[in-house]
Order: sequence, then C-alpha cells, then structure tokens
Amino acid sequence: MNEANEAFEAQLRAVLPDATFRPLTPAYLEEPRGQFCGNGGLLLAPKTASDVSVILRACHGARVPVVPYGGGTGLVGGQVMKDARPVILSLERMTDIRATHPTENVLVAEAGAILADVHSAAENVDRLFPLSLASEGSCRIGGCLSTNAGGVNVLRYGNARDLCLGIEAVLPDGSIHHGLRRLRKDNTGYDLRGLLCGAEGTLGVITAASLRLFPRPAKTGTAFLSVRDPAAALDLLAMTQAQLGQGVSAFELIKGTGLDFLAEAKLGGSPPLTPHPDWSVLIDLGLGPSDGPEAALLTLFEAALADGLVSDGVIAQSSGQRAALWKLREEIPLANRAVGAISSHDISLPLSSIPDFLTRTDQALAAIGAFRVNAFGHLGDGNLHYNVFPPSGEGKETYRHQRDAIRSTVYDLVAEYGGSFSAEHGVGRLKTAELMRYGDPARLSAMRAIKQALDPNGIMNPGVIFPAD
Amino acid sequence: MNEANEAFEAQLRAVLPDATFRPLTPAYLEEPRGQFCGNGGLLLAPKTASDVSVILRACHGARVPVVPYGGGTGLVGGQVMKDARPVILSLERMTDIRATHPTENVLVAEAGAILADVHSAAENVDRLFPLSLASEGSCRIGGCLSTNAGGVNVLRYGNARDLCLGIEAVLPDGSIHHGLRRLRKDNTGYDLRGLLCGAEGTLGVITAASLRLFPRPAKTGTAFLSVRDPAAALDLLAMTQAQLGQGVSAFELIKGTGLDFLAEAKLGGSPPLTPHPDWSVLIDLGLGPSDGPEAALLTLFEAALADGLVSDGVIAQSSGQRAALWKLREEIPLANRAVGAISSHDISLPLSSIPDFLTRTDQALAAIGAFRVNAFGHLGDGNLHYNVFPPSGEGKETYRHQRDAIRSTVYDLVAEYGGSFSAEHGVGRLKTAELMRYGDPARLSAMRAIKQALDPNGIMNPGVIFPAD
Repeated sequence: MNEANEAFEAQLRAVLPDATFRPLTPAYLEEPRGQFCGNGGLLLAPKTASDVSVILRACHGARVPVVPYGGGTGLVGGQVMKDARPVILSLERMTDIRATHPTENVLVAEAGAILADVHSAAENVDRLFPLSLASEGSCRIGGCLSTNAGGVNVLRYGNARDLCLGIEAVLPDGSIHHGLRRLRKDNTGYDLRGLLCGAEGTLGVITAASLRLFPRPAKTGTAFLSVRDPAAALDLLAMTQAQLGQGVSAFELIKGTGLDFLAEAKLGGSPPLTPHPDWSVLIDLGLGPSDGPEAALLTLFEAALADGLVSDGVIAQSSGQRAALWKLREEIPLANRAVGAISSHDISLPLSSIPDFLTRTDQALAAIGAFRVNAFGHLGDGNLHYNVFPPSGEGKETYRHQRDAIRSTVYDLVAEYGGSFSAEHGVGRLKTAELMRYGDPARLSAMRAIKQALDPNGIMNPGVIFPAD
Repeated sequence: MNEANEAFEAQLRAVLPDATFRPLTPAYLEEPRGQFCGNGGLLLAPKTASDVSVILRACHGARVPVVPYGGGTGLVGGQVMKDARPVILSLERMTDIRATHPTENVLVAEAGAILADVHSAAENVDRLFPLSLASEGSCRIGGCLSTNAGGVNVLRYGNARDLCLGIEAVLPDGSIHHGLRRLRKDNTGYDLRGLLCGAEGTLGVITAASLRLFPRPAKTGTAFLSVRDPAAALDLLAMTQAQLGQGVSAFELIKGTGLDFLAEAKLGGSPPLTPHPDWSVLIDLGLGPSDGPEAALLTLFEAALADGLVSDGVIAQSSGQRAALWKLREEIPLANRAVGAISSHDISLPLSSIPDFLTRTDQALAAIGAFRVNAFGHLGDGNLHYNVFPPSGEGKETYRHQRDAIRSTVYDLVAEYGGSFSAEHGVGRLKTAELMRYGDPARLSAMRAIKQALDPNGIMNPGVIFPAD
C-alpha cells in the first residue's frame, strides 16, 4: 500500500477541479471517542460521482488507500486510518437533494446530505424520513447507509438499509454503479445495494441514494412509564404492540442509573418521576388522524397497571411535554460521556433473553469490580447500550487495565445468548478482533472472498471490518 | 462441468443415508410455464444441513452442477436445467418448524417448509407471517427466500428478504454458514443473508431461516372500487395511505380485461359490479381491535367519490364477502392461463410513471398487432403483471413469432421509465438476456466477481442469472 504523496496529489490535480482539494484540518483525523487518531492524508472533496470515479481509479492503480468520510460521527473508528497517509474522501460537497417524489414516497439525496436536511426535505413535501439518530444534525446520509445506521425508529421503520431503495456508488476500480431506482420490487440479480449498505466503505463509495419516505403520522403520543424490571418491560412491549400494532414508533428502556447520571451532569431537564425508577420505558406512538394517542396510552397504562407491569407514569399532554420526555432519553449519552465509561457496548440480543442476560452480566462484572452499569436503549429492537462505569467518585482512567476483561465478559455472554457485539454502530476499526473471535467462520470466509473480488488491491478503508495486516 | 453419473452417485451413496436418494419423477424436470424441460439428473433429498454440506463439497470437488429445488413453482425456469445431468437438490425432507418465539415475533423454519405451513405455525402462536403468494400451498420457504418472493402484502410488510432475520446456508464449497440469528439489529460485516436471498440458488443453498412474525391484525376489511383510470387509482392509493397509514395491507389493480377473462373461463365467482369496470382496485386493510374497517373504507370511498376518483364499489360486510372479492383477484392468473398469453411480463415501475407507461405501451403494442392486454397486480408496490394475449377467438400459438417483438417493446419502455423487467419472479433462466441487456454494467461486473469468488467452479444453478456459456 502506498501513500497519497505529493506526486500522487499532482497527478490528481491535473484531472480534478481545484475545489476538490481542501485543507486537511485536525477534525478529519479524530473521532468522537478519541480512540483512533490519524497521521495525515490527502483530503479530497469531489462534487460528482464522476470525480469520485477518477479518484478511486487513480487510487486503485496506485494502490493508495481511501478512507470515505461522511459526517465523522461514527463511534467505531471507521473514519480514521492511523499509520498511513490515505486519501480522505469526504462527501461534504455532494449535499444535493436531487429529487423528491412525494406521490411515490421517495427522495433522492446525495451521500453528503446531512441527515437533518433529509428530514427537512421530506417534511417540505409532507412526508417522513424516519431514520433518527443522536448525531442527525451532523451525520451524512451516505455514512448512515454505509454503516447501516439504526436509532430510535427501527422498531417501526427498519434500519438504514431497509430505508434505501437504490444507490449510486463508485466501486473500488472506479466503475460507477447507476442504481438510483425508485422501485419497491426489483428481483434482477444480487442485492448490491444491500451489500454496500453496511460495508462501512470497504467495498466502494455510495455517492447518492433513493430513500423511502412515509406518510407523517397525524397524531403522536409519548409516555414515560416506570416498569417493575426488564422482564416487565418486555411484557409491556408485547402488550403495546398487541394494542397498537405498527403505531409504536419507539420503545426505549431507561435505567435508574441513567437518570442518576443525568442529574449528576445537570442534563435532561427535570425528572418526570421522583425518586428515579429503577427501570422505565419511553414509548412513542405515531397514529392516524382519527386516533387519540393520549387515550390509547392511558388504556395501555391501565392494563399494564392491572397486570403489575408498571407502577407509575407520565403521558405527555402537549408537544412541550413530549419534547421534555425525549430530551431525557436523548441526553443520556451526553450524561454517560460526562461520567466517563470504562467500556461501552452496543449490543443486541434475542428479545426474550434480555432479562437473563442483564442479570448474569451484571453479576459477572461484579466479580471483576464494583462498577456501575447503565444499560439502556432500543428495547423494541433488542438493542441495548450496555455501558460500564467506575464506582461513584472515581475516574475511568483508574480502570483502563480492566477494559479488556470487561469487554470479553460482556461479549462472551452476548455470544452465548446468540446476540451481536455490534447492533448498530458497526465493526469499524474498534471491533475487528471481536468479529474474528465471534464471527461465523463460513461467513467470514465468504466476506473475505467478496472483499477480494470487489477490491483486489485492498484500497477501500483498510483496517475496517477486517483487521489490518 | 461434469455429469452426476453413476460413479458420482456411488461415491455419495457411501457417505449419505439411503433416504437421501429418491426416484427422479418427471415433475422435477418441468416448470409451470412449460418453457424449460430437464433431461435427467440425480435427485437428492438431504435431511440436514450437514448432508447438504456433504453433497455440495462433493459437487464442488467433482465440478458437478447443482440445481436447488424448492416447491418447483417458480415462473422463470430457475428450477430446471436442460442439456445436463445435474444434482437436483430438493429440500422436501427439511420441513421442520424448528422453533417459534412468539414474544420475539420470530419463527425458525427449515427451507423445505411449505409456505402455508409456515402461515399455520405462525397462526398457532397468534402471529402473522405475511408473505402471501398464489402458490403458497406448494412453494417452500427456502425457494421464497432464494427468489426474494413478493406477493400481495409487500406494500405493508416487505419482500421475502425483508422478512428474513437470519439464515443457515451451505456455501458452494460445502461450508455451513450458521446465521440463524433472531436479531433486529446486527451490524457485524457484510449482509450475506441479503445476498443469498434473491441469488436464486447461484451462491449456495439456504437450509433454514429465522423469519419475522407480526401481530395478527385484529380487524380486517376489503373493498372493491371501480376507479376512473390508473391515474385515479394512484391518487386513491395516496388517499388511502394518508387516511390509513400502515393499515393498508394490499392495494391491487384490476383491469376490465381480467374480469372478462374470468367470465370467459368461468372463474372468480360472480362479478361484484356489472358491467365490468374498465379499471378497479382491491384494497385490503388490517387494523387494530378498536378500529372499524368497514367505516374506514366507507369514509375513504366517499372522499374518493367526491374527488371523482371512484364511481362505484363494494365494501365487504362479512368474511364470506371478503373471500369472494379476493377469489376474484386470486383467480385472474388462472383465467389468464385459460385464455393463454403470448407473453407475460412481471414488471415494476416508479409509481408516478405507471399511467404514462400503460398508455404508451398499449399504443406501441397496437402497432404490432391487435392484442388484448391484461395489466393487473400489486399497484401499491408499482408491480404490474403486464400480459399480452391474442385477439378474441384466436390461440397464442399463431402469435408465437411475435413474442420477441412484444417482449422487447414492453421491456424497452420499462427501462425508459427506470423500471424493472423482473419485479418479483426473478431472472431464472428465462430473463438472462434481459439482465445482460438492461442491467447496469458496473453492477453486472460486480455480480460476476461475487459469483466467481463464492462459487469458483460454477456449480451452483448454472445458467441462472448469468447466461449459460
């Protein structure tokens, strides 16, 4: 593998517009968790798929590594390559919403469009693009697709891959796949769209996508209910789905520890219930024009109370109250960061195994140290963020030496229950060892064969998904 | 490529249970449309994924072709290889429902399970498995997944691939991918599941799958409404989705020609409206326990009447009436077969282009001959079955020489509008030329690279997707 050195840059300057070349600021060499740090590289911000094609063809020929760069918000180091001077290919100038087709419920966006701008473009035609993440103000849709991002609405609308009908993408040899289809059914060969979604930039660069839109729910409702324990939360999830079907947009689990952290960090606004319940859920509904979400949530609450699943709760009576309840949930990651986790785990599990998993993992960690655990997240999808913190008053640095023991304890139990060590964040450079350890050997072998077939020179995001040599 | 000859059979008999070997009846060498006919082969019906592994490893080593065989109901010849003696690998003995997890909305089925039996297993735990096809009484779930089958409920629940959470599959070298996950989120590398779904048996054999279940709608409703024209049908679709959101389970377009064919063939029961409307739609709702589908459909009808979209209609008032309306829709393919199509086209289009497409294609075909066209199907998905018939009183044989001209006329216009020449049936052996003609070159090149990487000896279903050499 070669460096994107001055000679290589000169070669590209001869064939690309000047505006493609941008100064490399330190932000491109960092990532939010501070675990990976780049050394340098050649920042290129192409304006068209043809320019991306020119770049990839050159990199393919010269064996120069390429790091596709979206909003830089990824949490697994996929956007930062250390010990190398790669081409950092930023989609920041490809931000157009190319078309909206409200009658078809389709929008076509370039990969560099900020997720929040995609939301706005959908709202402008009275539609919903449901992918919703904490970083939606800065992440870019191409990165969301490449990492198959999840978030709070997966329960109802699916992951990023599910929301993508077609892509335009540049393959590692520079060929352009023109696949911006607006079709709901298309069985004409292998699902290259689905393969590139979630490939984390290792099989090519998505430059644009046609995305599924939905009718905007006419009525929305939100409730914060204290539940007996995680098993009761699951029973409540089943009851909610039985009563409200696909009207359930989000079903989030919140642990008392998270509410304590919010208070500690002076975040999240005033708590809806005091004292903090050990476990609670945040339920979001999106219903039709003739429905009454508050009444539906009250009916749910009364049935759950009768069954001993919940003991108290708040049903939002206004959009202000709704926003306040969501602020609570959305600021838990900030509170976590303020407290400082020793180790964070973005895991998913078969739904019915979650209560057992939590009990056993808490116990196993207690045998290592007196940690605090904040387990929270997208219960409706079986996706928890299981984050481990030092005892109160102590800093995470003191416990850094125990991080590996914590990780393997958590992930071994995840594997035992048939879960995933990366539910929504991806593998990136952070979890390549876990993939080799827990991944199915036949699948890993097939993945390597596909990588070799599509990127024989190994230029695309080296070190991501597959460990660096 | 070698034959599955007696020596090869003897080699397999030494390592596989006797029950694996079954007599090859003519049914395995035929397909429903009679366009492909096999010459022979070695029929193997393994009972386990390990047995499938033994078979594929032997075929891989001896370069013997393998035709995976589900229910034999496919309409594009994917199940029949002519001019060869392949191993015909039938999943007919792998029919177990391995597990149901109603609280997780998951069911694990072996690939040979009949689709209707998967429906029953879901119903037995008060859940819905929504994939619904005309051939559900005989097609097998492994075939449905391998062809990414569609059907009437895609609008609400997605295609077969969307309904699959995980797979167990045997790859062409005999390695077994153990991927029967029950997770809604799992971002740990390439989507091998999605790649094998829709690969039509060219990349391996799916032996089992974990499938998504849904709550059964508490209330269902069905309406048959005559619409002004296809443009009005699309406006009605938008109105229906705005009023009823995800409660719309199916939205089918029916042409008067189809109703005439039903009458001609004495099928479909008594017509709900006389005279036959030129265009009508069948709408199916699945709603919650507190909803009234009849009232909702009446509200919809009145609004559509006021807007001039519909002129008449029938709203089912009982499950008997509902079944009668669906019988009409379900028997259209039988009526088509009785009349005898010169050429049938399973196409999809961007929704908003459908009215234009229909007008222009009808005109273009009229320039070739006085054909009758029955265009009908899953309008909500933009998926039409555009079938071309001889003039009344004449047989299709007379017009066989015009089949190619008809096909290219239809498919050229489909391509012009950004549509697909195979919406739900797949490429099979029938449409390989169309794939080469209309497929995106970069994607075709990537598909070939993937095929070569995973099946270097080319044993898996040769001639399917990629033309036979």
